[in-house]
Amino acid sequence: MDIFSIVGLVLAFIGVIGGMILEGGHPTALLQLTAFLIVIVGSFGATLVATVPSDVGFAIKSLKRAFLGVKYDFHGLMEKIIDLANLARREGLLALETYANSGQGDPFLVKCLTLAIDGSSAEAIRETVEVDMHIAEEDDKAGMKFWETWGALAPTVGVLGAVLGLMHVMSVLDDPAAIGPGIAVAFVATVYGVGFANIVCLPMSFKLKRHVEHSQLLKSMVLEGVVGIQSGVAPGALRTRLKVYLGNHGGGGEKKH
Amino acid sequence: MDIFSIVGLVLAFIGVIGGMILEGGHPTALLQLTAFLIVIVGSFGATLVATVPSDVGFAIKSLKRAFLGVKYDFHGLMEKIIDLANLARREGLLALETYANSGQGDPFLVKCLTLAIDGSSAEAIRETVEVDMHIAEEDDKAGMKFWETWGALAPTVGVLGAVLGLMHVMSVLDDPAAIGPGIAVAFVATVYGVGFANIVCLPMSFKLKRHVEHSQLLKSMVLEGVVGIQSGVAPGALRTRLKVYLGNHGGGGEKKH
Amino acid sequence: MDIFSIVGLVLAFIGVIGGMILEGGHPTALLQLTAFLIVIVGSFGATLVATVPSDVGFAIKSLKRAFLGVKYDFHGLMEKIIDLANLARREGLLALETYANSGQGDPFLVKCLTLAIDGSSAEAIRETVEVDMHIAEEDDKAGMKFWETWGALAPTVGVLGAVLGLMHVMSVLDDPAAIGPGIAVAFVATVYGVGFANIVCLPMSFKLKRHVEHSQLLKSMVLEGVVGIQSGVAPGALRTRLKVYLGNHGGGGEKKH
Amino acid sequence: MDIFSIVGLVLAFIGVIGGMILEGGHPTALLQLTAFLIVIVGSFGATLVATVPSDVGFAIKSLKRAFLGVKYDFHGLMEKIIDLANLARREGLLALETYANSGQGDPFLVKCLTLAIDGSSAEAIRETVEVDMHIAEEDDKAGMKFWETWGALAPTVGVLGAVLGLMHVMSVLDDPAAIGPGIAVAFVATVYGVGFANIVCLPMSFKLKRHVEHSQLLKSMVLEGVVGIQSGVAPGALRTRLKVYLGNHGGGGEKKH
Amino acid sequence: MDIFSIVGLVLAFIGVIGGMILEGGHPTALLQLTAFLIVIVGSFGATLVATVPSDVGFAIKSLKRAFLGVKYDFHGLMEKIIDLANLARREGLLALETYANSGQGDPFLVKCLTLAIDGSSAEAIRETVEVDMHIAEEDDKAGMKFWETWGALAPTVGVLGAVLGLMHVMSVLDDPAAIGPGIAVAFVATVYGVGFANIVCLPMSFKLKRHVEHSQLLKSMVLEGVVGIQSGVAPGALRTRLKVYLGNHGGGGEKKH
Repeated sequence: MDIFSIVGLVLAFIGVIGGMILEGGHPTALLQLTAFLIVIVGSFGATLVATVPSDVGFAIKSLKRAFLGVKYDFHGLMEKIIDLANLARREGLLALETYANSGQGDPFLVKCLTLAIDGSSAEAIRETVEVDMHIAEEDDKAGMKFWETWGALAPTVGVLGAVLGLMHVMSVLDDPAAIGPGIAVAFVATVYGVGFANIVCLPMSFKLKRHVEHSQLLKSMVLEGVVGIQSGVAPGALRTRLKVYLGNHGGGGEKKH
Repeated sequence: MDIFSIVGLVLAFIGVIGGMILEGGHPTALLQLTAFLIVIVGSFGATLVATVPSDVGFAIKSLKRAFLGVKYDFHGLMEKIIDLANLARREGLLALETYANSGQGDPFLVKCLTLAIDGSSAEAIRETVEVDMHIAEEDDKAGMKFWETWGALAPTVGVLGAVLGLMHVMSVLDDPAAIGPGIAVAFVATVYGVGFANIVCLPMSFKLKRHVEHSQLLKSMVLEGVVGIQSGVAPGALRTRLKVYLGNHGGGGEKKH
Repeated sequence: MDIFSIVGLVLAFIGVIGGMILEGGHPTALLQLTAFLIVIVGSFGATLVATVPSDVGFAIKSLKRAFLGVKYDFHGLMEKIIDLANLARREGLLALETYANSGQGDPFLVKCLTLAIDGSSAEAIRETVEVDMHIAEEDDKAGMKFWETWGALAPTVGVLGAVLGLMHVMSVLDDPAAIGPGIAVAFVATVYGVGFANIVCLPMSFKLKRHVEHSQLLKSMVLEGVVGIQSGVAPGALRTRLKVYLGNHGGGGEKKH
Repeated sequence: MDIFSIVGLVLAFIGVIGGMILEGGHPTALLQLTAFLIVIVGSFGATLVATVPSDVGFAIKSLKRAFLGVKYDFHGLMEKIIDLANLARREGLLALETYANSGQGDPFLVKCLTLAIDGSSAEAIRETVEVDMHIAEEDDKAGMKFWETWGALAPTVGVLGAVLGLMHVMSVLDDPAAIGPGIAVAFVATVYGVGFANIVCLPMSFKLKRHVEHSQLLKSMVLEGVVGIQSGVAPGALRTRLKVYLGNHGGGGEKKH
Repeated sequence: MDIFSIVGLVLAFIGVIGGMILEGGHPTALLQLTAFLIVIVGSFGATLVATVPSDVGFAIKSLKRAFLGVKYDFHGLMEKIIDLANLARREGLLALETYANSGQGDPFLVKCLTLAIDGSSAEAIRETVEVDMHIAEEDDKAGMKFWETWGALAPTVGVLGAVLGLMHVMSVLDDPAAIGPGIAVAFVATVYGVGFANIVCLPMSFKLKRHVEHSQLLKSMVLEGVVGIQSGVAPGALRTRLKVYLGNHGGGGEKKH
């Protein structure tokens, strides 16, 4: 659970709605089907136009990632890799098959190990895995861009809604009583567009960019580790080489070391 | 058929027009020749100024690509390449000529194979094909940029239309009855500019960027495969090397593997 | 002649002015010395501040390029290079001097050939020519940036003009009859800034970016060709290597092959 | 203490508040809980959504860096490295352990030295340290981006606050006396958003970008120095190599040389 | 003297002030301490927050560069380098010490020559000088960014000033006579922010970017020349290699060749 995403959303809503109440307004003024239809449905449609169908899965996956969080267990994976290096030293690369086939291991580590067990050279492992990492990065970014795109389109479609609202107001200018509330209604479209984009979509896409970095870094560590195992680097030296990836950042790994 | 482009456009129109009707307005208020002339024709003219004549073909091709969709058959092409690798192993590189000359093969695969059959070294194939891929990438991007440019210019020309409309309103300020509808008319220009850009042009250009990525990746796989065939890599090892390109993304290929 | 630049400008003017007339306005309302002085002269001054004096030549050259067009004769140059390769094969590199000294040859091809005739190694030719291409690219971009800068500054100076106009209107608020036309006058500044930037300057700069790409690509082909001649690559193999540059893009070359 | 951050903030406040007083306004008009709640709390919530929890530490660290300043002692560190090079020359690499274990040394220098003492090759030191520098750079940038993000979201949430305020005004349009002050209240939200972003957040993020550069450059010098010590470069030649890092820039180092 | 910076500024002022007078306004309406305090002092404060103290020197140096101009004497330096190459050929590298120690030579050329005279290898000279050039580039860019930052912050602080002004107007809405002039006063803040940014700061920063390019290119030529001298390249061949840097661009060098 990414507590910041939840707390952030709650805080933002408390701020906006709380401020509105304090000002003497009533939050129900923000509940409006028309504005919702124009701004949220309209910009969702535009976002679909912008999306390659096969990227929808990445968008949903990234939504989970942003709210449920991901544990980048740098420390745990490093220890696992050192264990496997020790095992490979004692019993040879083929001894790693037990882990690789257990169905319990980290999927990316298993993928890299399989290449090593199959007899690929260090260079071949690196080349193959780098293509894999590149594709995963592009796909993660595609998931992130779904939200970035929605966040870019929502405010402009919000302006569209506001202008349509004002057009309607203009057509009833001869009825002064209808002007004020009419304009207020028109403004809700702006609130929807600006609010949805700047409180939900864009912040999420910002967070997801950092996730892509963390995810790639973790994979770099695994690749470095497996290449080290394949080349028979001594576990001690391997630990030195991998420890640098722990840095000061990332998920749950820090707490342990 | 890219179902998302169609559904997205329909949804966006339902949202905007539906919201307008719900609000009590009438969609015909949006049909206006003046605004169309200023905003759509005007920004189309500006987009032509921005376009090198030979790029129009790429713009039209990219329009098809965005709405009809493209099938990036990673899986099918990989299997074809493995087949050809087996053939080349048994009967030599020249045996690939049948496929290359069949007129039925994937054009890019044929192009790469021809280089191999003509006796180019792996290095020479790679160099030549990378120039080819670079040029194709620039051309695909040029097609995408046509829509990006139109999407960037339409809203500002929309502002132009709105300002021209307001100028006209100002000149009839002494006739209060003409003000309201006059301004409404002026706003239609904004709706045209913002709507056309944010619902059609920009979303399309966003989608096309991803198409360029997919298209380049598919070509990378083909290049890797043909270089492998030329170097006599064993079909099994070649499969390992190419499988990584399947990733989790892209067109119809996933469904098969 | 770049027909798109002319047609595009005409179309944009027809759209904007035609729409204005259709609306019942009169185009002469757009002729206004004050707004011209503030917006066009003012932003031209600001653009001069942004320009290194020696780049003015590049700006003028790029203006010609955008409106007169350039013929990137990929096909013709390729054939010429193949001819020269045949000549060099039969009679040696020095036989190319006739072409190089004819004063009729493509200047860039002559420059590259001269290096080869003078006895530079393939590596030395490549290094020298790449510096040359890099400088030419920066200079072409400087010409393009003149228009990009003017296009970036014109709308903001247009806002300046509008605000100055509104300030004037505010000082005559006690004369209601002067308000409407006064504001209309103030809006012309916005029209000048937005229109000049988005119909002339920015589209031109977009087109020029593509010209830089084409121009660099053509030079890459020439460099590749001359390096091939210097290294004694067989004309047939050289044709294979150069043909890839023809792609589907660019000036007049396509029509011939 | 980064005197510019303090003086800059004071100056900006004097300018804005002083101008306000000069104009006849009263600064207390800017104290408003509603706007604070909507804009500052609201945009803080949105910034939390955008932030990976483990990056909060970097954001706080970067706040300190922006206001307390950092001393990039290029000169002092260079002299220290030359001293250590002399020591290593006389007594061998192991003699550096005293410094490395003293607990007083520059942490990054100690980290690099430890790799050298442990027997890593120059190449291995470089690879390991470059990963370390890359991670530190990403983390420093994450701290910087916290403020950049807040600075990007605050003005749009300010617009949200203004629109909510105007909506409230519209609902009391029948009470003319409430309109003016009501709108003034609504404008405070804009002031909060624009002011907080452009006087605090964005300037801080701009400054922090430069800190990242300085910090990376200092580390590059240390890496170059330790690699030099490891390879047994003569202290005189090492000084030539490191002196170039002193440049004309950075913290307190310049004053000494 | 960079005549374009002076002429550009004068032209921009003539345009803006002239247009204002033509419109019947009076330029003194633009002289206003309040707006100056809020916009110029306020944004200067914010720019200080954004600036690392040691970069102020670079900002001032870049101001001089933008208005006094710099002579990039590609031709003169090339001739000097050829002379030195001839000298080194006849009398050895040590003969260059006279020039290096004369205190009259181009500082960067002297710096490079000193490395060669001290016996550094071509590779070592290149590495050291490239670090030096990288640092100088970052520092020049830091000077440029001071103006870019001020230019980015001034318009938004101008909006702040306008909003504060409008707030004041709103509080005197019951005095109709005060509204018009009050709003006019508020607009001056916008004029200051937009004008200062788009006529002074941003154009200057655009010009400085090009200066950075020219400056780096000149240094590249010097580096290439000194590496050539060190490697004993024949002066004639060296001239061919350096002549390409003359291009068609840059300071006073062109006029001579």
